[in-house]
Amino acid sequence: MNPCVIPTASEDTVGDGRWMSMHNRFVQQAKTSEQEVVFIGDSIIQQLQFSSLWTEKISALHCINFGIGGDRVENVLWRIKNGEFDFNTPIKAVVLFVGTNNTDCTPHEIFEGILEIIKEIKNILGNVYIVIPTLLPRGQFPNPYRERNDHVNTFLIDKFSNEANKDELTENVYVVPIHENIVGNDQTISHHIMHDYLHLTNNGYTKIFGKVYDTLCQLLKVSRVK
Amino acid sequence: MNPCVIPTASEDTVGDGRWMSMHNRFVQQAKTSEQEVVFIGDSIIQQLQFSSLWTEKISALHCINFGIGGDRVENVLWRIKNGEFDFNTPIKAVVLFVGTNNTDCTPHEIFEGILEIIKEIKNILGNVYIVIPTLLPRGQFPNPYRERNDHVNTFLIDKFSNEANKDELTENVYVVPIHENIVGNDQTISHHIMHDYLHLTNNGYTKIFGKVYDTLCQLLKVSRVK
Repeated sequence: MNPCVIPTASEDTVGDGRWMSMHNRFVQQAKTSEQEVVFIGDSIIQQLQFSSLWTEKISALHCINFGIGGDRVENVLWRIKNGEFDFNTPIKAVVLFVGTNNTDCTPHEIFEGILEIIKEIKNILGNVYIVIPTLLPRGQFPNPYRERNDHVNTFLIDKFSNEANKDELTENVYVVPIHENIVGNDQTISHHIMHDYLHLTNNGYTKIFGKVYDTLCQLLKVSRVK
Repeated sequence: MNPCVIPTASEDTVGDGRWMSMHNRFVQQAKTSEQEVVFIGDSIIQQLQFSSLWTEKISALHCINFGIGGDRVENVLWRIKNGEFDFNTPIKAVVLFVGTNNTDCTPHEIFEGILEIIKEIKNILGNVYIVIPTLLPRGQFPNPYRERNDHVNTFLIDKFSNEANKDELTENVYVVPIHENIVGNDQTISHHIMHDYLHLTNNGYTKIFGKVYDTLCQLLKVSRVK
């Protein structure tokens, strides 16, 4: 069976219990939060909250950050099914960004896992806006994981941006193509955008996640901060 | 044999070559850099460069950051032995911070590995200042890795801050005790200091690595930015 669709708590391989500590904190924050937008995903979401894009622009949209470094699709699915989305106040939008850590899964498995998360979000929060930034390329030079993430993106764009595939699941789901214009003409990725060829620099966040911010502003009908 | 004293390149388990890309970039940067202070270590050093402490204060000391997420003691030893410290211009100080990822090693093995790195730094750069911030506690609740890191710190402080143990190796090496006052009276660590109970928030960096900045200013006889 596809491992991405089986809700799975992250194994505490080290023994310091940090993943479960974070999950428990997010469950508590959901109960007491008065935020309107939830960001959930892996380390790329987690570190977004320390960027100037977050502090200067995104946070003004009343956003909360549930990113956990190393998270895989099935981990996010587990977290949502176990209380992190049990909010006491209405949520307007969710930004979901996960998949690059599923390096041992096929693109279609990752895609199916993301669909499963979307179903679960709609199940819990109703017909909120769901924003899916496309997976980013990784590695300084071409490698199989760039292609893998690109294939996931092809599935996502076909499902959610192709009118022919519209159904109940696609309603209010917006795929934002942030993966373009990152790889240079020579097929390399610059450390000025991705300092370790996976995670974004401060400027990288402004450039790449700026599109996510713009999408949120449009959906929430909020004026953008220039 | 103690794995920490055997120079080891990080294994590219995923297959995107990111670690070696970063190493190669640092080797190139060493050749062309005009910086005077090098920070080297794991993700806690790596992410320091995106904190306001770095951008507003530390960077003014002409610092370069060679942090790589996930790095272990033996990885840093390998990097230094393979060109990252082959600078063309004089280096005044090195900040070395690594060890918390050696979760399967004993405190004494980690300590010996750090000594080996110090020997190698002195071998390459001569009698520069070497600043060693103590290892930080981790995990929201008490766990074996807090004790492990504390034991490493005990070895470091005894070796480098106890007059009785002074020798050629300890000359110009300064251990900065940054591990204190992080764990609360109830034995927990707040996410306001460590967002994932391992890595520091922006405020955490200001509070905890501020002591490292102060030490550098004293050693380099530079006035601190208030």
